[in-house]
Amino acid sequence: MAFVVQKFGGTSLADADRIRNVARRVVETHRAGNNVVVVVSAMGKSTDGLIELATQISDTPHPREMDMLLTAGERISMALVAMAIEAHDVPAVSFTGSQAGILTTADHGRAEILDIRAFRVRECLDEGKVAIVAGFQGVSPDSKDVTTLGRGGSDATAVALAAALGASVCEIYTDVDGVFTADPRVVPSARKLDEVTFTEMLELANAGAGVLMARSVEFGIRYNIPIHVRSSFHDGEGTWVKEETMEEPIIRGVAHDESEAKLTVKGVPDRPGVAAAVFEPMGDAGVNIDMIVQNVSSEGITDISFTVPEAQAATAVAVAQSVAADIDATGVDLDTDISKITVVGAGMKSESGVAASMFRILSDAGVNIEMISTSTIRISCVVRGDDTQAAVEALHRGLIGDAS
Amino acid sequence: MAFVVQKFGGTSLADADRIRNVARRVVETHRAGNNVVVVVSAMGKSTDGLIELATQISDTPHPREMDMLLTAGERISMALVAMAIEAHDVPAVSFTGSQAGILTTADHGRAEILDIRAFRVRECLDEGKVAIVAGFQGVSPDSKDVTTLGRGGSDATAVALAAALGASVCEIYTDVDGVFTADPRVVPSARKLDEVTFTEMLELANAGAGVLMARSVEFGIRYNIPIHVRSSFHDGEGTWVKEETMEEPIIRGVAHDESEAKLTVKGVPDRPGVAAAVFEPMGDAGVNIDMIVQNVSSEGITDISFTVPEAQAATAVAVAQSVAADIDATGVDLDTDISKITVVGAGMKSESGVAASMFRILSDAGVNIEMISTSTIRISCVVRGDDTQAAVEALHRGLIGDAS
Repeated sequence: MAFVVQKFGGTSLADADRIRNVARRVVETHRAGNNVVVVVSAMGKSTDGLIELATQISDTPHPREMDMLLTAGERISMALVAMAIEAHDVPAVSFTGSQAGILTTADHGRAEILDIRAFRVRECLDEGKVAIVAGFQGVSPDSKDVTTLGRGGSDATAVALAAALGASVCEIYTDVDGVFTADPRVVPSARKLDEVTFTEMLELANAGAGVLMARSVEFGIRYNIPIHVRSSFHDGEGTWVKEETMEEPIIRGVAHDESEAKLTVKGVPDRPGVAAAVFEPMGDAGVNIDMIVQNVSSEGITDISFTVPEAQAATAVAVAQSVAADIDATGVDLDTDISKITVVGAGMKSESGVAASMFRILSDAGVNIEMISTSTIRISCVVRGDDTQAAVEALHRGLIGDAS
Repeated sequence: MAFVVQKFGGTSLADADRIRNVARRVVETHRAGNNVVVVVSAMGKSTDGLIELATQISDTPHPREMDMLLTAGERISMALVAMAIEAHDVPAVSFTGSQAGILTTADHGRAEILDIRAFRVRECLDEGKVAIVAGFQGVSPDSKDVTTLGRGGSDATAVALAAALGASVCEIYTDVDGVFTADPRVVPSARKLDEVTFTEMLELANAGAGVLMARSVEFGIRYNIPIHVRSSFHDGEGTWVKEETMEEPIIRGVAHDESEAKLTVKGVPDRPGVAAAVFEPMGDAGVNIDMIVQNVSSEGITDISFTVPEAQAATAVAVAQSVAADIDATGVDLDTDISKITVVGAGMKSESGVAASMFRILSDAGVNIEMISTSTIRISCVVRGDDTQAAVEALHRGLIGDAS
């Protein structure tokens, strides 16, 4: 008897019909003799609706109350999924994050999972029932308050729960067929990947491939739980994310991310400690820094550029302006019209010249590169926002090739 | 420093504006130096929306999951109310039924409160904060599952919590000005009562006066907590429900209830045990019986009529038909087009002839009486549904008189 965790996102649960559809799939898996734990997000766009209500009430809603509010979303979907499964005469019990023993830090809105004590879920499975668990939410054992895990939290719940319960696979059902070599909306010839390694998926996720969040991949790596990203609308195989794959192509995929902004602190005196002076207060202010580039010094003066989520740009500018005054820099520039283009592939490790090919392809496509950052299996370039389509298409054609 | 529990219903919380309005009222009470506990229902008609979703999913949703689903409603409103109060710089913390220590039986959908262990609420008040508690919901200490108290549950939460915490008054805010001598939609000259005794209120509630549910009045009686039923839209005094009142008029009010149906088991052999044979299986099937009338026997054969909530009529008919076969009765009649008219007044205890006056007034108004049931301070008659308006108006005019 296999043990499967199945996670369904908001789009797969948007209305009664889709919920019945999810139940049918769960019931099939259960009837095939598997232990099934179902992890659910809130229905459709209902979380956005709750956030909208909160903004009507308060400009700065208390994070504890915000979590109390948002966790109503999964509560609704999990109860409905349980009812839909029971309509097939298969016993099902729903559990909140707290009931499922998802213990987290007390950081409301971005809690980290500390431990999973899934006694009740295990007992429910032992009784031959299907367990439905609310994604995205947990409870802080210290404050006894309900918490949420932040963006992508339901995927993290699913993979962490799969690890805690010893499941053989975590299936992430979504509205696309799997992980693609590039965003099919940008590159129509992009093709679905059958397999991708954990580290490749991690880089792709960090580079903006929205299908799976980085933190759920991290749980997959840590506990070696294979993740199957697949469509909730048909039975076809999706993409397996796992430790090793059959083939290791040089480039697995091209990702892009238009949600970042670039800040430049100009005219920075080039002396020890200035980088720390800039980035320590950013960290204190909760700003997430992605790429950092420091230009070579000219006459003891340099520029430091970095990217941050656009949503944090205003905070980052305020911090940067205060720092700039302290360190005698000449000013701060904000550029929100940028795009980060990334190529990812584990084969890159043993292959030289990939970066050079990438820069050549972009140059031939008339795309100017503003920042560059690399890791062993990834190269990212910041380009103008307008160049996104041209850059992704050219890189996909030149490094991966069209679907056969 | 006084200690007040304030309960707000769905209409008072229907949108962001009304929630802000509720917050303003709570903040005023808090700033006046009172300890305030706020009990909330779900926003507007949101509970109906959730029930509608459940019926789309399943004809017979599991009661545990139904409770899980419905409790999302108060979760949303309580978090929003807390945010709205904090927007006034008054600290506020929301608690689910479980967090507030509302321990109940495990009877999903109609749980009874067993005990209230409001440690967290008390601690919150001791810290000078306002506590917001979800009405209608609790937790079963045995099953550890979330439960709901059924219809009128939020009022019951409020009064029980007021008792457990030792509050001096429980204020029930509603969309009407208080308790009236009759439903103002039926009798425009009906007037608001300043005071009404617990027992009168209990009879009025059971007779269909929807403003306050019987079970919350029962808590008021048991713990002697004065209940102030008042409008959430203005500051005027409403109706005080308490142990004794300044005046004891013969008739306090006229109530009517069109939500019941009448069943008649016909041709019942008049022998010992037939009543038990009819009503024991009704109890087993969870049917709530209200009035029972057994006609005098003619030639050893009688009819037994009784009223049940219309929603349970189908179940009741099925049970009655099976019983009728067992006891050799000739058949079962169902009549859904009835109305129960009730006059209530503590003064009736020491006054004779009230019943006779009631019957005379109805007769003069051309209203036929189908069933009669009385208690020390109440007389109820079942009449045709079409006669409701005429009966209530005539009784109000004849027994209470128009507003001065």
